[in-house]
Amino acid sequence: MKFKISSILSYQIKSDTTFFFNIQAAHTKTQKVLEEQLLTSAANVIPESFDRPAHNARILRVRVADPGYFEISYTATVEVNLRPVKFSNAVLESINDIDNEAAAYLFPSRYCQADRMYKFAESEFKNKNTTFEKVAAICNWIHKKVHYVSGSTNANTSALETLTQREGVCRDFAHLGIVLCRALSIPARYFATYASRLYPPDFHACFEAYIDGKWMLFDPTRLVPLNGLVKIAHGYDAADTSFANIYGDAASIGVEVMCAPLDEKAFDRQIPKMGLVSYA
Amino acid sequence: MKFKISSILSYQIKSDTTFFFNIQAAHTKTQKVLEEQLLTSAANVIPESFDRPAHNARILRVRVADPGYFEISYTATVEVNLRPVKFSNAVLESINDIDNEAAAYLFPSRYCQADRMYKFAESEFKNKNTTFEKVAAICNWIHKKVHYVSGSTNANTSALETLTQREGVCRDFAHLGIVLCRALSIPARYFATYASRLYPPDFHACFEAYIDGKWMLFDPTRLVPLNGLVKIAHGYDAADTSFANIYGDAASIGVEVMCAPLDEKAFDRQIPKMGLVSYA
Amino acid sequence: MKFKISSILSYQIKSDTTFFFNIQAAHTKTQKVLEEQLLTSAANVIPESFDRPAHNARILRVRVADPGYFEISYTATVEVNLRPVKFSNAVLESINDIDNEAAAYLFPSRYCQADRMYKFAESEFKNKNTTFEKVAAICNWIHKKVHYVSGSTNANTSALETLTQREGVCRDFAHLGIVLCRALSIPARYFATYASRLYPPDFHACFEAYIDGKWMLFDPTRLVPLNGLVKIAHGYDAADTSFANIYGDAASIGVEVMCAPLDEKAFDRQIPKMGLVSYA
Amino acid sequence: MKFKISSILSYQIKSDTTFFFNIQAAHTKTQKVLEEQLLTSAANVIPESFDRPAHNARILRVRVADPGYFEISYTATVEVNLRPVKFSNAVLESINDIDNEAAAYLFPSRYCQADRMYKFAESEFKNKNTTFEKVAAICNWIHKKVHYVSGSTNANTSALETLTQREGVCRDFAHLGIVLCRALSIPARYFATYASRLYPPDFHACFEAYIDGKWMLFDPTRLVPLNGLVKIAHGYDAADTSFANIYGDAASIGVEVMCAPLDEKAFDRQIPKMGLVSYA
Repeated sequence: MKFKISSILSYQIKSDTTFFFNIQAAHTKTQKVLEEQLLTSAANVIPESFDRPAHNARILRVRVADPGYFEISYTATVEVNLRPVKFSNAVLESINDIDNEAAAYLFPSRYCQADRMYKFAESEFKNKNTTFEKVAAICNWIHKKVHYVSGSTNANTSALETLTQREGVCRDFAHLGIVLCRALSIPARYFATYASRLYPPDFHACFEAYIDGKWMLFDPTRLVPLNGLVKIAHGYDAADTSFANIYGDAASIGVEVMCAPLDEKAFDRQIPKMGLVSYA
Repeated sequence: MKFKISSILSYQIKSDTTFFFNIQAAHTKTQKVLEEQLLTSAANVIPESFDRPAHNARILRVRVADPGYFEISYTATVEVNLRPVKFSNAVLESINDIDNEAAAYLFPSRYCQADRMYKFAESEFKNKNTTFEKVAAICNWIHKKVHYVSGSTNANTSALETLTQREGVCRDFAHLGIVLCRALSIPARYFATYASRLYPPDFHACFEAYIDGKWMLFDPTRLVPLNGLVKIAHGYDAADTSFANIYGDAASIGVEVMCAPLDEKAFDRQIPKMGLVSYA
Repeated sequence: MKFKISSILSYQIKSDTTFFFNIQAAHTKTQKVLEEQLLTSAANVIPESFDRPAHNARILRVRVADPGYFEISYTATVEVNLRPVKFSNAVLESINDIDNEAAAYLFPSRYCQADRMYKFAESEFKNKNTTFEKVAAICNWIHKKVHYVSGSTNANTSALETLTQREGVCRDFAHLGIVLCRALSIPARYFATYASRLYPPDFHACFEAYIDGKWMLFDPTRLVPLNGLVKIAHGYDAADTSFANIYGDAASIGVEVMCAPLDEKAFDRQIPKMGLVSYA
Repeated sequence: MKFKISSILSYQIKSDTTFFFNIQAAHTKTQKVLEEQLLTSAANVIPESFDRPAHNARILRVRVADPGYFEISYTATVEVNLRPVKFSNAVLESINDIDNEAAAYLFPSRYCQADRMYKFAESEFKNKNTTFEKVAAICNWIHKKVHYVSGSTNANTSALETLTQREGVCRDFAHLGIVLCRALSIPARYFATYASRLYPPDFHACFEAYIDGKWMLFDPTRLVPLNGLVKIAHGYDAADTSFANIYGDAASIGVEVMCAPLDEKAFDRQIPKMGLVSYA
C-alpha cells in the first residue's frame, strides 16, 4: 500500500534559532520511502540530516539565524507493507524473554513515570493473564476513561496527570498506554506517525508494546485505521520523539499535515481485513 | 455510651520548641467530656488552651524551652450520645441547599486538590443519583482500590498521589474521600478522632460528608465501628487538624493512644444495630 | 480617602449554575462602605447574601437556572482610613506571641504548600533577623526572581510550581509570598482587593503577614500603590478567596473592574507619604 | 592509576525475580578492566551478560527463581588513564556545534524535567557567558543551596522536588546538575561510578556536561576526588543507569561497595595536580 504524505511547518523567527525536525518517513523493514522532497523558505538555510538508528529517526537540524518568516515543507511517497501478525495468545511471557534492546523500554521516562503507578496498574489489570490481554485491557480502559479534548493539555503534561485529569490528546493517550504497560513490566514505546483518515489532519501518536518478541502497535484514541500510518520514529516518549525541538526564540505559526493512501478504494477494502499490526 | 480515652506523646527536645496539640476530646452536641486530666513531664511548662470553635477544636499551645525529654499525657472519660440518623435517600440536593458554613468545605485544600479531579470524579461516579449514593460509592471505590499499608506515605502525601499510588493510611483514605466528594460538589471535611477497636491503637481519621443538611460520618478504611469514636476536631484536611504541629526542633519518640468503651458488653450489643452515624 | 469601585462580570450560562461571588467591599475597621448597588441581568435572580466574618468576606450566592447571557454588576463608594503603622523592627517574635486566630494562617493550604519549602525558605532567608526583615526580603526575592507574565498560569498553579517556573500573575506572586512566610513560621494570608492605578484594570491580589501582632500588607508585584486598595476579603489562599466560584456549566465572557480615588489629586499627594500599611 | 573495586549485593528473594545489574566497570578509552570476577550465591544461577554500548553499560540479567537468600559479588582491577583536559574557556558554543549523539542529552527525562525549568535556569545563570562558566556556576549553586542528607529522598524523587526541598543524596545532586544544564541547552548525562575516598563507601553518582565537544565530569556533592572514580555507565538519569533494576519480589538486605587506588601514595600525590577531568 502506497501513501502520499506531506507536512508544512511555519514559524516566526525572533532571534537565531536551531530546530531539530523529526518529520521524515522512517526507513524500516515494513516501510520504504519511494521519493521525497524537502524545501525551506530560506535559500541559505541548508538542513543537516542525521539519523538516530535506535529510534528509526531521521533528524533534520536546521539553523535559522535571521529573524522573520521561516517555513519547511516535506513531501514523500511511501510504500508500507504490513503483514498479518500471528502470536500465541496463550504464551505467558517472562521478563527473561525480553531482548536486550526492548528491556530499555521498561524504564520510566519524562512523561511516563512508571515507578509511580505499579500499584494502580497491578490492581486494575491483575485479572488478565497474557501480555496481549493486558495491553488490550489497558487500551480499553484508556478509551473508556479518558476523554479526547483538543487543547486540554500542554507540553508539560505527563501520564501521571492524565491518569487523574482524564482528558488529553493523542500524545497523552499514548503516554498513558506506555506507562501502564511499563508498570506491568511490558516494554512500551512512543510511536510518532503520519495517519490517514485523521480529522482534523495532524501528526499522530500511538504506542508499541513488546508482545511475544514483537513490537505491536496500539492506539487507545481509536481515531484512525492502524494500517493507514506512515511511521516517523519511535522513542521513550514525546520528549525524544516530538516533530520539532526548538532552541532559540521562534513562534509556531502553522502546522499542516497530510497523509492519504494513493489508492483509496484498495485501502477501504483492506481495512476490515487487518487485525493486529506491527510496523517494526 | 461512655468511653475512656488517653494519649501519651513523648519527644526529644533539641532546642526551644512550641507545640500546638490537638488531642483533647471535643465538646459537641453529641459528646460530653465527663472528666479529663492533662499532665506534662515538665513542672514549669504550662499549656495554654484555646479553642477553634468553627472546628470544634480545643488546642493546647505548649512551649518547651529546655532541651531534653518531654512528655504530655491526656486522659478523659467522655459520653457520646449518637442517635439514629434518618434522611431521605430520594432527595436530589442542590448546591443551593448547602448552608453557608458547609459551603466552605467545597474548596480545595492542601491535601485535597479537588480542582484537579473534576473529570475523574464525574466519570467514575456519574451513574449515582443521590448525594448519599455518591458518597457510599466513593467509600466503596476507595476501600476496593486503595491498600492500607502502614508507613507507605508521609506528611507530604496528598490525595492526588494516593489516587495513583493506591496505598496509604487512614489519613490518606480520608483525604481521598474528601477530595472526591468536593469534586462532585459535596461538602466534605476531615474528622480527627479516638477510635475503639483499632489495632494497633493510634489516632484515627475519617471524613464527614454533608448530606441533606447533616454532616454524616464515613470511614473508607472500614477498620473500626463508627459508633466507637470520640471526636477530637474536624477541619479542611490534615493540614489544620493534625494532633501535633511542631515549631522548633523536636523529634517524636512515642505516641501511645487508647480508646475503649467503659461497658464493652453493652458496646458489643449496640454495634450491629447502628447504621449511619453523625457526630455533628 | 474615598474610592469609587465597580465590577461587571458576564457569563454564558449553559445549564443550571450556582455562583458564589466574592466581589463586595469588606466592612472592616479601616474601611466603610458609604453606598453600594448590586444589579443582575435577570429580573428573577435574587442574590442571597451571607458573610464569612472570619475572612471579612461578604459572599453572594446566585443561582441562574436558565441558559443564556447573565451579568452581575456591583458599584460602591468606600471610605478607607489607613493610619501610619509603627512597630519595633528590633522585636524578635516567637511563635508564642502569635495569637490564636493568626496561628491558623501557619498551616499549608491548597496553593501554598509550606510543608514542602522549609529548607528552601530557611536557607534563603536565614541571615535576616526580625520578622519584618524576613518578609521584606521575601518580597524583594519574589520581585527580583519571578516575572509577571499575563496568562502564564492557570487555576491549578500553586506556589510550588511558581518557585521553579519563575513566572505568574498577582495571584501567584501572593501565593509565593504566603508560602515563604509560613515556611518561616510567619502567619500569612491572601488579600483579595480592588486596586487603583492597576493597568490593565482587574481584580488584584496581595498578601498580609502577621508582624508584631499586626497584619501588614505586602505586594511583591509592586504594580500598585498600597494605599489605593479597597479590600474584598482575606483567606488561606485563592482557593477560598477567589472572586467567583462556579458550580454548574457557565463560561466567563468578560470581567470589567474599576477602582479610583474620588479625589485623584489628594491621592497623588498622599502616596509618597505612606510607608507600611495595614488594612486589618 | 590502578584501582581495586568490589561490590556485594544481597537480597531476600520472595518469589521468582529477575535482576538487571549495572555494577561492572565500563570498557572505555580511558578505562581498562585488567581482571574481574563475578560470583553468585546460587550455583544454578548463570548471569546473562549484554551491553548497552551507547551508555558504556555492561548489564547482567540474573533470574533467581527460588525464594531465599541471594547474593551477587563483583570484584575487578581497573586501570584508569585520565589526561589533562584543555579547552578554550572563551568559546561561546552554539547548539549547532553539538554532535548528533550528544544532542539526545538535551531532552527532558524522568528525573530531569528540563522543560519545567527554563525560566529558573535562565534567570539564575544568565550572567555567565561560556558553557564552562555556566556549568561551574550550576555546581557552585547546588553545592551552596542543597544539603546532603542521607535518606532524605527516595526512588521517586526528581530534580523538580530537589530544587525546592533543597536536600538529597548524590543521585539528587547529579539530577539537579543535569536538569539545569539541559535547561540552558547544554547536553548533560548521568554518570554512575565507583568512587575512592567516599565515606561511608557506596555507589556514587556525578554528571557529565558536554563542553566544547567533550564530556567533562562534574560532582556538585564535592565529596570525592574526581580522579578516583571507576566508571560504571552513563545515561539519561537514574532511571536507566541504576545499579539494580528488580522485576519480581525481592528485598534488598545489603549493599557493600569498595573502591581504592592500588597505590594510595601515588594517588595522594596526583590529587592536587588534577584539574578538570573527562572519563569519556
